[in-house]
Amino acid sequence: MLAPVAMKTHRLEPLLNPGSIAIVGASNNAARIGGMPIAHLTQFGYQGQVYPINPKYSEVFGLRCWPDIEALPVAPDLVVLAIAAADVLPMLRRCAARGVRAVIVYAAGFAEEGARGAAMQAELEAYVATTDMVVAGPNAMGFANLNTQAHTNFASVFNTAPMQSGRGSVSLLTQSGNVCAAVYAIARRLGVDFSHFINTGNEACVDFAQYLEYLAQDVATEVCMGYIEELRDGPRFMDAAEAFVRQGKLLILYKAGETDKGSEAVRSHTSALAGDKAVYQAAFRQLGIIQSHDFVQMAQLAHLAGYRHRSAGKRVAIITISGALGAILADKFIGAGLEVPTLPQALQDQLRAGIPDYGMVSNPVDVTGNVVNDPGFVRTAMQALAQSEAVDSVVIYAPGYMLDRMADDLCAVSARFSKLFVAIDTGAAKTREQLRAGGVPVFEDIGVAVSALAPFLLWQERRRHNRWLQVRGQAAPTRAALPDSLDEYRTKQLLARHGVPAALERVATTADEAAAAADAIGYPVVLKVLSADIAHKTEAGGVRLRLADAAQVRQAFDEVLASARRYDPQARIEGALVCRMESGVAELIVGATRDPVFGMTLTVGLGGVLTELYQDVSHRLLPVDEAMAREMLQELKAFPLLTGYRGRAQGDVDAACAAIAGFSRAVLALGDQVQEVEVNPLLVMEQGVCMLDALVLTAPQAA
Amino acid sequence: MLAPVAMKTHRLEPLLNPGSIAIVGASNNAARIGGMPIAHLTQFGYQGQVYPINPKYSEVFGLRCWPDIEALPVAPDLVVLAIAAADVLPMLRRCAARGVRAVIVYAAGFAEEGARGAAMQAELEAYVATTDMVVAGPNAMGFANLNTQAHTNFASVFNTAPMQSGRGSVSLLTQSGNVCAAVYAIARRLGVDFSHFINTGNEACVDFAQYLEYLAQDVATEVCMGYIEELRDGPRFMDAAEAFVRQGKLLILYKAGETDKGSEAVRSHTSALAGDKAVYQAAFRQLGIIQSHDFVQMAQLAHLAGYRHRSAGKRVAIITISGALGAILADKFIGAGLEVPTLPQALQDQLRAGIPDYGMVSNPVDVTGNVVNDPGFVRTAMQALAQSEAVDSVVIYAPGYMLDRMADDLCAVSARFSKLFVAIDTGAAKTREQLRAGGVPVFEDIGVAVSALAPFLLWQERRRHNRWLQVRGQAAPTRAALPDSLDEYRTKQLLARHGVPAALERVATTADEAAAAADAIGYPVVLKVLSADIAHKTEAGGVRLRLADAAQVRQAFDEVLASARRYDPQARIEGALVCRMESGVAELIVGATRDPVFGMTLTVGLGGVLTELYQDVSHRLLPVDEAMAREMLQELKAFPLLTGYRGRAQGDVDAACAAIAGFSRAVLALGDQVQEVEVNPLLVMEQGVCMLDALVLTAPQAA
Repeated sequence: MLAPVAMKTHRLEPLLNPGSIAIVGASNNAARIGGMPIAHLTQFGYQGQVYPINPKYSEVFGLRCWPDIEALPVAPDLVVLAIAAADVLPMLRRCAARGVRAVIVYAAGFAEEGARGAAMQAELEAYVATTDMVVAGPNAMGFANLNTQAHTNFASVFNTAPMQSGRGSVSLLTQSGNVCAAVYAIARRLGVDFSHFINTGNEACVDFAQYLEYLAQDVATEVCMGYIEELRDGPRFMDAAEAFVRQGKLLILYKAGETDKGSEAVRSHTSALAGDKAVYQAAFRQLGIIQSHDFVQMAQLAHLAGYRHRSAGKRVAIITISGALGAILADKFIGAGLEVPTLPQALQDQLRAGIPDYGMVSNPVDVTGNVVNDPGFVRTAMQALAQSEAVDSVVIYAPGYMLDRMADDLCAVSARFSKLFVAIDTGAAKTREQLRAGGVPVFEDIGVAVSALAPFLLWQERRRHNRWLQVRGQAAPTRAALPDSLDEYRTKQLLARHGVPAALERVATTADEAAAAADAIGYPVVLKVLSADIAHKTEAGGVRLRLADAAQVRQAFDEVLASARRYDPQARIEGALVCRMESGVAELIVGATRDPVFGMTLTVGLGGVLTELYQDVSHRLLPVDEAMAREMLQELKAFPLLTGYRGRAQGDVDAACAAIAGFSRAVLALGDQVQEVEVNPLLVMEQGVCMLDALVLTAPQAA
Repeated sequence: MLAPVAMKTHRLEPLLNPGSIAIVGASNNAARIGGMPIAHLTQFGYQGQVYPINPKYSEVFGLRCWPDIEALPVAPDLVVLAIAAADVLPMLRRCAARGVRAVIVYAAGFAEEGARGAAMQAELEAYVATTDMVVAGPNAMGFANLNTQAHTNFASVFNTAPMQSGRGSVSLLTQSGNVCAAVYAIARRLGVDFSHFINTGNEACVDFAQYLEYLAQDVATEVCMGYIEELRDGPRFMDAAEAFVRQGKLLILYKAGETDKGSEAVRSHTSALAGDKAVYQAAFRQLGIIQSHDFVQMAQLAHLAGYRHRSAGKRVAIITISGALGAILADKFIGAGLEVPTLPQALQDQLRAGIPDYGMVSNPVDVTGNVVNDPGFVRTAMQALAQSEAVDSVVIYAPGYMLDRMADDLCAVSARFSKLFVAIDTGAAKTREQLRAGGVPVFEDIGVAVSALAPFLLWQERRRHNRWLQVRGQAAPTRAALPDSLDEYRTKQLLARHGVPAALERVATTADEAAAAADAIGYPVVLKVLSADIAHKTEAGGVRLRLADAAQVRQAFDEVLASARRYDPQARIEGALVCRMESGVAELIVGATRDPVFGMTLTVGLGGVLTELYQDVSHRLLPVDEAMAREMLQELKAFPLLTGYRGRAQGDVDAACAAIAGFSRAVLALGDQVQEVEVNPLLVMEQGVCMLDALVLTAPQAA
């Protein structure tokens, strides 16, 4: 047998799971920030040592109060500073000298309050970097470890929300104390039991990603509900999120600031940039994170997470006692992205044996009100559904009293089969807790059920084969050197080397060379001025289409160069590009831009002004392989234009996917040398694809 | 003084507000359909006479039981038939003979169960038409008048949901008994008090619209929550809905069957066609109905309806104690179609007087946690918001204990000013009932608050100026005769007479006439074959574009006619149409089709395949005037293409609106002679618009 591996204690352990806690600025008043944590610690049964510190008192909440930190018999794991901003830095020095491992700073008045506060925060950060201490905040409401009742917060929600009786496995991690408290209150009302209550404050020394790293390795935490305004360290966040989800834990994140007004409120709140909504959405999805926009939904997802080890997926069987309710559920599930497949005939026949003619067996299944008169049938039907490979999950919606009559059967089937059965009861079933304990989650509202089930089942579906987490770990491509000049030809050649097909084209530096190139390529041709300094070739009069013979090419060469020189006398003109005049089925735009949080991000859409108006684009973090590229194309509402819509020609989707994957490799190989890369358009033909134009913008530091 | 007007008793009064009730098929078992209504009537305190009828019993639930309907001392207002389908018709005859005014038929086995049942239902309908009786059902769960406790139902939800203590003003009207019960249970849990509980069953003799007519004139009903699968009488429904909303009552309707699966379930349920989702949506909006897709939302809207006399609208001020919560609310409200306007500087200055620098005053307003220390400021701030003309409604979101401290001030301001203030409390405020009684609705969830407030505030906004209800009542245009031939030219002339501009064009029957026409019109011209029998002119080789001179026109005339004759030798060819070659800013498609429920419906969109893929169209019931036409165009995502998007030319939107209004007049004037009318495209130019093609399909009976 191997010896047990010595677990390295996580750096944030003294902050989030402290064995002893001192409160500097302790107060006897439970309504004050120096009193509330001590009130909570004594009231809720924290077993560790608590040291109130305040020279004014000898006792606080029945505990001995110490005059200063130096007077303590031992160095506490964690010190809570309930003191004013100006006093924080001197006190941190004393904590460090005393050997304290972790500190929470409540005080506001730092980076969120103008230049002076920002300077003070910078000073704090610089000092803490010279120590071994972990410092949370400033401007934070403090934490709670609900499994040890280590309360280091001044959150009055713990005075009003009912305290859980047992252990919890759901952690809260928010960039706002008030959101932390609001979600806690809502989730407690819905019966969620918590492990950690964390709000990050100004994140001077510990940011969101580091807390998430902690929760990833925290055995008490199986679910994290998070709230984000701005991520300070995107790559670290991605690694932490990946570590979290790779363990099968459920990560649910709310990102605020999606509208201008919302992001204005967030900015003013934490001086943070809200970031690009679409990129966050892509990142969450690729990382296997469920994005939520509703606190109740988050809480219900946390509840569902307890059933995440059951087998489940997006093909849902709906069982009701009424065609109308079946219709309503089918509308809602399909609208939310799930599937309600027609059941196989054999299964329908099995169901029909117990369902009257006016009931339905196809899915939704309307067992009709009569079914309760035949309890044996309920079990048979549920077993048949549990064993069917045509559906992944089963949802039963029946009035409370009918659900009560089915509860034993449901629990029995759920005990024997791993498939997820879910009950909806908008009445007052008495068996809700029996069902939940028996492996059947129960919702008391249709809307809430759909809003939680849909993302949960889609998450179950995706986590089985999260393609991106596989390709993300692969070795990065060899770094590609940037050519001296990023003119159109060299840009295309660069991309072509990674697998994005260029059109048949040649560089010509004289009219004769142009004519010879055209002869070789075959007519008609396009002739374009070649200059890394001229981005808008058409505007510069630098493009001629449909040139039919050598004479036209010669003339075009001279005209185009003259026109370009008039347009920009300073531009270095390298000649002209002679290209075969291609036509195809559709034009794509394939671009990569650098997101400040998540790095290089790929965008695919159909070219043209309507695509822009309809915002019909798909985003992904890199790398993107061919399978992901196909998913991106399929997400476009305009995708049918590539696949023979209404008798049109079919485009070569395979070639487009290969080109997009090649584009992704090229962008990764260029790395931090570039700021933006774009192929616009990528012409999709019946056979193959080719770049008609391409552009690279170098990164400021590389320029 | 005028003498009181004698109110004519509504035909459905004995059905929905009966003074005496007999139950045929009475049972002593409260779980049976013949027992449950009697149990409810005796248990909940109905004051009218109840006559159980069953020759097997002498007493039922303590009431004398009568052997048959003939034995009753008087004819009851209402008879409930808890008997099998086959026994219904004979019993109806006995009811009519006994002088009964109304009957409810519970029995299933009619139109919902195949051809035999349908025949039985037809027989029932035919018989009832010969009587003065009102007959509800069959296949219905029965009614409840919750203000008189007249229970004529076998809905077990009344056994489980808590009975209201006072009078209610919310009626339920559903095309499914199970939905009726489900919504009742949910709404009772949320505290809604009811007037009527109505489910319509198979609607053999009384349909949804007739019940709605009753509720429109029912003084007990101020709100109706309805559920629709299929409307049997669209015009009657529209009139009833208009009567309902014109009295300031709130009509909330859920339409099921929006997906294929949902409509399949609905069809199989009531053998009804689900109808066109988009047309229902347009109709609901034009009639001032709030469309809902969620039972909880319906119940919350019913709750909000109690505050509908307060002044409210879509410009919302958000007051919170945290920037994060402000951001979340702003995102949600804007996402739901409301506005969160930046407050005027003077108001900001007023607010700043009591809000620290790190709080926000622009909107969302972050009063910060400190505000509770200065209660005088809360009242000042609320008054300033109540008096401001920059916002229509005020939403306050604060943790329970803070809301409690603000409650007196909120109630005081709400008593003095009519502007709607709304509170959100996700904690556990003790003052919720005080606030509600003081005119401030309280929500306990952000998502639910937004989902109810957004449609409610938009409804408040729209009902102030429901343009369509004004134009709907105007005199119909004089009926227009259909021309003998509906070729393109005559179709355009027909539409042009109502104000849809035609292009400059002439009919030519010979090549010489064509050339002369082109000379008169000016080059270039378009030449098209003219034949009412050839719908697809391009396919027939019947169109020539960009003809530059008389010779080309002559040649084109001959070719086009020859080609059309080859394409369809049977077609009557009337010659050719010579039109000026127009070009413009954008092309619209303007069409009218006959919806089976709502009649002629107008659709506007931009032409082209992408419009179709993106479903970017707007629908309205007729008539549509210029203001409504503008609203339709503005709804299109592609609308910017008409208004100079990215430096493009601007289209003549005024002319487009006038043309659409003219099109509406033309369609109404044609009336039931036509099935479909379409202008495609309507070319929008920088100055003016013109039809490039137009088509009329006559109605089957008129063909």
